[in-house]
Amino acid sequence: VNVDGTPFRTIWLAGDGETVEIIDQTRLPHRFVTVRLETLEDAAHAIRAMLVRGAPLIGATAAYGVAMAMRDDPSDEALAAARASLAATRPTAVNLRWALDDMAAHLAKLSPGARAEAAYARAAAICDEDVAICRAIGEHGLGLIRAAFEAGGRSRPVEVMTHCNAGWLATVDWGTATAPIYMAHDEGIPVHVWVDETRPRNQGAFLTAWELGGHGVPHTVIVDNAGGHLMQHGRVDLMITGTDRTTATGDVANKIGTYLKALAACDNGVPFYVALPGPTIDWTIADGVRDIPIEERDPVEVTDISGRAPDGTVTTVRLTPHGSAAANFAFDVTPARLVTGLITERGLCAASAEGLLSLWPERRGRAAGAG
Amino acid sequence: VNVDGTPFRTIWLAGDGETVEIIDQTRLPHRFVTVRLETLEDAAHAIRAMLVRGAPLIGATAAYGVAMAMRDDPSDEALAAARASLAATRPTAVNLRWALDDMAAHLAKLSPGARAEAAYARAAAICDEDVAICRAIGEHGLGLIRAAFEAGGRSRPVEVMTHCNAGWLATVDWGTATAPIYMAHDEGIPVHVWVDETRPRNQGAFLTAWELGGHGVPHTVIVDNAGGHLMQHGRVDLMITGTDRTTATGDVANKIGTYLKALAACDNGVPFYVALPGPTIDWTIADGVRDIPIEERDPVEVTDISGRAPDGTVTTVRLTPHGSAAANFAFDVTPARLVTGLITERGLCAASAEGLLSLWPERRGRAAGAG
Repeated sequence: VNVDGTPFRTIWLAGDGETVEIIDQTRLPHRFVTVRLETLEDAAHAIRAMLVRGAPLIGATAAYGVAMAMRDDPSDEALAAARASLAATRPTAVNLRWALDDMAAHLAKLSPGARAEAAYARAAAICDEDVAICRAIGEHGLGLIRAAFEAGGRSRPVEVMTHCNAGWLATVDWGTATAPIYMAHDEGIPVHVWVDETRPRNQGAFLTAWELGGHGVPHTVIVDNAGGHLMQHGRVDLMITGTDRTTATGDVANKIGTYLKALAACDNGVPFYVALPGPTIDWTIADGVRDIPIEERDPVEVTDISGRAPDGTVTTVRLTPHGSAAANFAFDVTPARLVTGLITERGLCAASAEGLLSLWPERRGRAAGAG
Repeated sequence: VNVDGTPFRTIWLAGDGETVEIIDQTRLPHRFVTVRLETLEDAAHAIRAMLVRGAPLIGATAAYGVAMAMRDDPSDEALAAARASLAATRPTAVNLRWALDDMAAHLAKLSPGARAEAAYARAAAICDEDVAICRAIGEHGLGLIRAAFEAGGRSRPVEVMTHCNAGWLATVDWGTATAPIYMAHDEGIPVHVWVDETRPRNQGAFLTAWELGGHGVPHTVIVDNAGGHLMQHGRVDLMITGTDRTTATGDVANKIGTYLKALAACDNGVPFYVALPGPTIDWTIADGVRDIPIEERDPVEVTDISGRAPDGTVTTVRLTPHGSAAANFAFDVTPARLVTGLITERGLCAASAEGLLSLWPERRGRAAGAG
């Protein structure tokens, strides 16, 4: 995806072949700053301090962290220490643990002298695999946008709404929910995106708006409250969001507020799609509302907000009165009955056990709950 | 309603019997500042610059503006000029025009020498009538909260959710949606309020949280995205909002985002009530989504936000990236089918033509559309 005309991934090997570069996402949208990670500790800090975020990108950064550790010391002890220090950065990130397990499985069987080169190669492969997954999601979702364009008589832009940032900034490239949008845009299908601000952390206003703008995709930021009104008045052709976790039955846990948009889509006959890579499916869970624990985060994310002050500095201001409590629920669960379909790297399917099993037939015969 | 133990209205005659005092609501929630209005021009400025807001309070302020004008010059010309200058402050405010018409009707028939005293008396009566309406709404709504307390076995606080500010700050006292809450609290029924932040103008986080806190009502501020999750998990007993305009069939126009909460309430069996004074019923309209025009406001309310900086100053910061457009829809319409009931000064009724006519029988026989 482009940033003002120049193609970027969110993480890439620097010219020296040893260090990696990332975009410091904590500075977006007000500053575009790239940062060079030179050591394991740099990589751990980038994950911990959320310079990188999004499950796939966290996994990729951790993989390069292991590679840099192996470059400095390829011993078993160093490998174990790198794993431990990276695993501690974001305790609940599933992809992080997956990437570390994958790297360790590849490296443990090699002699120390062969590990550094193999680690860099495997980290690059993890990045490329993520790009391939997102590209496949994009290709499968592109048909939905193309069909909406045809349905509108090819006479007006396709109106897509999205929530939070399931964009290329959360992955290595393309994103999940955004991949069909970028592909449609690149193919010349006119697309306009309604970008939910996504309080409290404003990933929509801060990140999705920035990345769509950088690639030249027309978009309009709205408050999270506005989506129902737009759908009531026929101004949304389809909604596409990402997901943090999908149950074996097609319930979808995603950023808080997704459920409200799914209700509005259902009430107004607007198709509601969820884009996801296979690894976010939790085959052990059948009832999302009952069984997916919802993280409660620091209320300061609700009471305070950061933005660019008139003097150009990024400043945090308090919104709520002194003495008022706040609560901060990070995710909600959208029941499968409200989801029109899932867009995966293996194709489209219904948000149901049968739909998912049609694309993951190797899971057939394993009851939900049996893993 | 109290501010930290001291009873306040939002507007009151000063000790001199001639000037009036108000709370400067633009300074809330970070500063509690009262302002003295000494002239017609002061009153017009207070309305125009939104030191006072909320339809009933705007009407009351305009009435006192006319009174102060009559004190200075009780001529027909001065009365006409006062009306014109106040009517221009907020062109779309229905109560403003109603209060000005009412004052003119009372004063025009009097000799100039009798007008000042009569104007102050009528302005005071307009305030008292608003308080009586809100008190009646509170008394009718109190039964719902009491019933929820009993249904919960009197063992836990009643959980009420509200959106925007339909509080005493928008009226002269009590508020509309908040009136039942204050009355329940004063009666010793434990109540806890989930306060929607209400982006973009944050009337929930700025005003509702402040006024509930000042009166000692337990409350928690949440982002607008969170309500569906709370309802899914049984953490809301009832929702009460206000309304800017209600159709003859019970459709409700209210602050943007109300419709999304009504959908979530319906999906989870949570009663959704709307509190309203009779004058907000528009007997001429039958289809709210089709026929109520929705104001689009300046996008800067979406792109920028104000709060208290660490040094204590109130600062405005930009949230969105340079170059990203924003749209700002002020209201949405909640169809009557999603509204459990209406709480009016005449009692509770169904959100339907029949329900409203049962309380306003004098409207029977006049078809919607015939005014």
